[in-house]
Amino acid sequence: MLVVMTHNATAAEIEAVCATITSMGYTPAPMPGAQRTAVGLVGNDGRVDDTLIAELPGVAKIIHVSNPYKQVSREWRPENTIVTIAPGVSFGGEDIPVIAGPCSVETEQQIVESAILVKAAGAIGLRGGAFKPRSSPYSFQGLGKKGLELLALAKRETGLAIVTEAMDDEGAHLVAEVADCIQIGARNMQNYSLLKTVGRIGKPVLLKRGMAATIQDLLLSAEYILSEGNPHVILCERGLRSFDSASRNLFDLTAIPVVHQLSHLPIVADPSHGTGRRDKVMPMARAAVAAGADGLLIEMHPHPDRALSDGAQSLNGEQFAELMHQIRRVAEAVDRQIAGSIAAVA
Amino acid sequence: MLVVMTHNATAAEIEAVCATITSMGYTPAPMPGAQRTAVGLVGNDGRVDDTLIAELPGVAKIIHVSNPYKQVSREWRPENTIVTIAPGVSFGGEDIPVIAGPCSVETEQQIVESAILVKAAGAIGLRGGAFKPRSSPYSFQGLGKKGLELLALAKRETGLAIVTEAMDDEGAHLVAEVADCIQIGARNMQNYSLLKTVGRIGKPVLLKRGMAATIQDLLLSAEYILSEGNPHVILCERGLRSFDSASRNLFDLTAIPVVHQLSHLPIVADPSHGTGRRDKVMPMARAAVAAGADGLLIEMHPHPDRALSDGAQSLNGEQFAELMHQIRRVAEAVDRQIAGSIAAVA
Amino acid sequence: MLVVMTHNATAAEIEAVCATITSMGYTPAPMPGAQRTAVGLVGNDGRVDDTLIAELPGVAKIIHVSNPYKQVSREWRPENTIVTIAPGVSFGGEDIPVIAGPCSVETEQQIVESAILVKAAGAIGLRGGAFKPRSSPYSFQGLGKKGLELLALAKRETGLAIVTEAMDDEGAHLVAEVADCIQIGARNMQNYSLLKTVGRIGKPVLLKRGMAATIQDLLLSAEYILSEGNPHVILCERGLRSFDSASRNLFDLTAIPVVHQLSHLPIVADPSHGTGRRDKVMPMARAAVAAGADGLLIEMHPHPDRALSDGAQSLNGEQFAELMHQIRRVAEAVDRQIAGSIAAVA
Amino acid sequence: MLVVMTHNATAAEIEAVCATITSMGYTPAPMPGAQRTAVGLVGNDGRVDDTLIAELPGVAKIIHVSNPYKQVSREWRPENTIVTIAPGVSFGGEDIPVIAGPCSVETEQQIVESAILVKAAGAIGLRGGAFKPRSSPYSFQGLGKKGLELLALAKRETGLAIVTEAMDDEGAHLVAEVADCIQIGARNMQNYSLLKTVGRIGKPVLLKRGMAATIQDLLLSAEYILSEGNPHVILCERGLRSFDSASRNLFDLTAIPVVHQLSHLPIVADPSHGTGRRDKVMPMARAAVAAGADGLLIEMHPHPDRALSDGAQSLNGEQFAELMHQIRRVAEAVDRQIAGSIAAVA
Repeated sequence: MLVVMTHNATAAEIEAVCATITSMGYTPAPMPGAQRTAVGLVGNDGRVDDTLIAELPGVAKIIHVSNPYKQVSREWRPENTIVTIAPGVSFGGEDIPVIAGPCSVETEQQIVESAILVKAAGAIGLRGGAFKPRSSPYSFQGLGKKGLELLALAKRETGLAIVTEAMDDEGAHLVAEVADCIQIGARNMQNYSLLKTVGRIGKPVLLKRGMAATIQDLLLSAEYILSEGNPHVILCERGLRSFDSASRNLFDLTAIPVVHQLSHLPIVADPSHGTGRRDKVMPMARAAVAAGADGLLIEMHPHPDRALSDGAQSLNGEQFAELMHQIRRVAEAVDRQIAGSIAAVA
Repeated sequence: MLVVMTHNATAAEIEAVCATITSMGYTPAPMPGAQRTAVGLVGNDGRVDDTLIAELPGVAKIIHVSNPYKQVSREWRPENTIVTIAPGVSFGGEDIPVIAGPCSVETEQQIVESAILVKAAGAIGLRGGAFKPRSSPYSFQGLGKKGLELLALAKRETGLAIVTEAMDDEGAHLVAEVADCIQIGARNMQNYSLLKTVGRIGKPVLLKRGMAATIQDLLLSAEYILSEGNPHVILCERGLRSFDSASRNLFDLTAIPVVHQLSHLPIVADPSHGTGRRDKVMPMARAAVAAGADGLLIEMHPHPDRALSDGAQSLNGEQFAELMHQIRRVAEAVDRQIAGSIAAVA
Repeated sequence: MLVVMTHNATAAEIEAVCATITSMGYTPAPMPGAQRTAVGLVGNDGRVDDTLIAELPGVAKIIHVSNPYKQVSREWRPENTIVTIAPGVSFGGEDIPVIAGPCSVETEQQIVESAILVKAAGAIGLRGGAFKPRSSPYSFQGLGKKGLELLALAKRETGLAIVTEAMDDEGAHLVAEVADCIQIGARNMQNYSLLKTVGRIGKPVLLKRGMAATIQDLLLSAEYILSEGNPHVILCERGLRSFDSASRNLFDLTAIPVVHQLSHLPIVADPSHGTGRRDKVMPMARAAVAAGADGLLIEMHPHPDRALSDGAQSLNGEQFAELMHQIRRVAEAVDRQIAGSIAAVA
Repeated sequence: MLVVMTHNATAAEIEAVCATITSMGYTPAPMPGAQRTAVGLVGNDGRVDDTLIAELPGVAKIIHVSNPYKQVSREWRPENTIVTIAPGVSFGGEDIPVIAGPCSVETEQQIVESAILVKAAGAIGLRGGAFKPRSSPYSFQGLGKKGLELLALAKRETGLAIVTEAMDDEGAHLVAEVADCIQIGARNMQNYSLLKTVGRIGKPVLLKRGMAATIQDLLLSAEYILSEGNPHVILCERGLRSFDSASRNLFDLTAIPVVHQLSHLPIVADPSHGTGRRDKVMPMARAAVAAGADGLLIEMHPHPDRALSDGAQSLNGEQFAELMHQIRRVAEAVDRQIAGSIAAVA
């Protein structure tokens, strides 16, 4: 931590800062400069609470040098964490799993048909919401437990791994019984009660970045899960709130190399929510793979024109198969491969 | 709803849009233009799901005319809603209640001392967190139930109304036993499970605007509470995520007249979180009152330099008394008055 | 400047950073910590170029402690700068001048009628664009030199001080012949050629904050003008780009106390552009005065429904007079007064 | 244009809107709905000024259906525009030209060495600033005319096409004598005087998107150039202002498919400014190509540690060669090729 004094701070004020640092159990390191003095705080093992010092006269600002997160950081663990949600479905290695499916589980026929198309195109995971966070209370809120049963059925029929969202504690336990990976949505990224719950449950978690969350916010939310003893966290970039209505969100693909530098956790991309427009999903899925994404989430619906939610950003089966074809080529160009592709091709 | 066709949409494509609208039970109203045709959808009572139409060839974009919210809208109820959380503590009328207190409840002495200072300065409500949503799992998380007991004690000693945050279902029921108003924090503004719970509990709710929430998002979250049968909702502007680190958040005071136009619900302002800096709280509290705020939330701590959280934005007792003095004058200049002021002066 | 080393930086890497700092003519001050070492750079008089050091192995990040601006800073000059653009029209003292008028100068009758209404309401400056920066090349671009002549005429008739915008070098010289203060619009805030030109001209400059400019960006743009020898700079908050279409811009009133803390220059507010909606101008003008604004810019048009630009945010004469009445009361409540008001009242 | 009436608008108010539309020379098309009435405006050829109507009682909001730009739109010209800045250097077709070089032209040796490395790696254009827009007046401002002479020299020695920035009218004419393409920087994207000047000069223009510009703003700025008779415009995505300091800017790659849908103009990407960090340039260059970019701008410096500006985001010669290698592979995976690559390989 660095305490920057004002231009005209007196020697007594600087001394008082040093004395306070000493009283807190750390060592002060004053650095006089031509323009002003700064005082370093030495000896801390983690972030220091600065409120005592911020109060003192002559203090211009305080700069924190240590990161507030620990277990999620690359410094804590240099090698990549590989999160395996089901046999053969691993995030963080060279393989790039694709998880696809409808926004919401609607009917048995719809989810089974989706699963068959997803599998046929070579993807290895099925997504689909049983509990849906919707901005309006009057929008379709999902089938709830019935939706989870239909996901379980689709899994039995196809063997696909299941990723689905939980919105509260009760839902998290229900989802954990059926799904291979519990999704925490963007709106709940800072719902710390829910993060602790899924941390304790211990199942793999897919944590979506909030609409206006910094990468540090995202990593701190992941830290909540790890600090409960659950290391199986997959991060997800899904677009930020934007001032430009040309796309639904502002898809921040640079988050991928930024997370790879700061953390050992895998990060996947969701170009369907990231762009919100069907015709933008294909190019941005390619871009995500080229940027280094460790997986993709794609909205696919056998009949997007009849979807109960997010139809405008869902691909149909044929479009999804074409997407899989295109990203396989890009994956090869960056020396990786789409997970399960070879089997699908064979 | 208006369906805008592309420049070169064919007559058959326009006809297909009309047919689809008819099949949905509405009436199409084609409007040919020099550049392009638009097709109005007539006869809806509320927002229409557009996914069937968005799919059709020749459709350029779809514009929704109806608001997605109902019960919170000024059109639904033209006169102001007055939310009374305790005898004499009402939001939405001419009086402007001030709720002040520490970020977190820390000790009996701290919260009682805070309450006495708050009351002495003429405010009529006490705030203070027992359950604290913190970005980092390693930061102080609040005293929990013990904190609620201390708030109850402070209420008994001073008669101040209590506003405190709930972070999950279990907490909401605990808070409801002690508090006069349940606060939903910015990070949980779209935690719909929690919104439904506090809607069902029925106690007054103070709903804070999320960091990147539009006013429409905020009103829709309030609609979740009203649609469960609880009309006692107070909205709160507390600053948005900003690209400028000069202040902690971007305090959007225009939200106040915007909400007053769109909704009958009262809206209060929180200049402490809105700015994040002690020396900015005073001018922005004045500005909030001048803009028409129906109440203020102010962080105050008897000893900000020893606060366990948010010390840098807390006023001490003397500063808070000065703030009350200043906003009384501004309130008069806009023909309102700070609630309880006269009694305090007498 | 502070060089933060990575967790695992070697002693040799730290030594190399120190050697580089020495070779640049400064003194290194290593600060070993429990988690990592930081190296202070001592002896600089202003911002240091960090590119040599950022390159070195083991460097995690570099933190600049000095501000990049000088002459505009409060540390450079502790007392307020008073900018006088015409006799009795001064910004930065206790008086709060109001400058009002139409978005664009349209006709002799329109601008003279506007000036008479502005003066009658007690304001002391007239605004109106002769050169208009419009997003579309097909929108009305202003009357140019003819518009300046009409402003000169309105000044002769009423004695009001004139503030009008310049968009390029040639225009700046033309504007300087007629206006008391040259306005630089938000879109040109970082048009450094133009900033240097108005710096050399030496007339007072009203510099509007760009749509996504930080306060530091704004101060640096002002520094361009001061560094050419022109200290007569008035800053202006006029709203930032927003993700919420509920208002045209996001009016950042906290910029006022932030600028007052960092700089000695006066700052005024433009609630007409800041909100973009007529019915929001009044409350936000009051809020700006309560927040400490050193002046106001208000769009007023004798017949807003016939305005060639920005009619939706312009007040008519009666509304403007009501605004003047309301802000006089708020100004008193913060121990200031609207400039020229007393004369107008007498 | 669509005029949405309030919930409770009277028949007389609706009639007044219709009458006003008629008086403006258009045809009104009232659309009564269950909740409210909307009135379409039919017969316009381009955007209609709405100020007369916005004024009327009972009008809730006005929705513009037509785009405000014309010549840049894909509806105006369905096929891609190919902008050729020099023989063999074309943007908008299957080839993807790469333009690389230092942020600033510093010395003869530096720019010639840069040009040789750029050419050796297979790129076909050289960038480098002679006129530099810098936030601070105390930062290096470029060599000016001397810099242009050095660029001309580098062109003679290597045959590379030259792209360099102009900041004002005088500079634009100087740049036009030497460069193959005039760059307009992000800070000047809405400097309409400069846009008109480069429109009249007629040379190819590379127009960078402003820090908070919507795609529509960018297209309107391009429209300024086209409306002066210059169709040779290349758009450029270079990152937006962000709330997250993890990267310098928020690189909006979705802008690429969005522009491709709305406009016939080519769009290139600048991952160096887009990310601001050397180690992020490589993955985001790959992502830009995968997203469909029509060219790349890359900052490269023979000795980034000695660069006078933007060293932290510049690649050295070896890193740049590796980047060219990687993007060639990605280009192939999307059925395109890096321009000039084959010659470089042979």
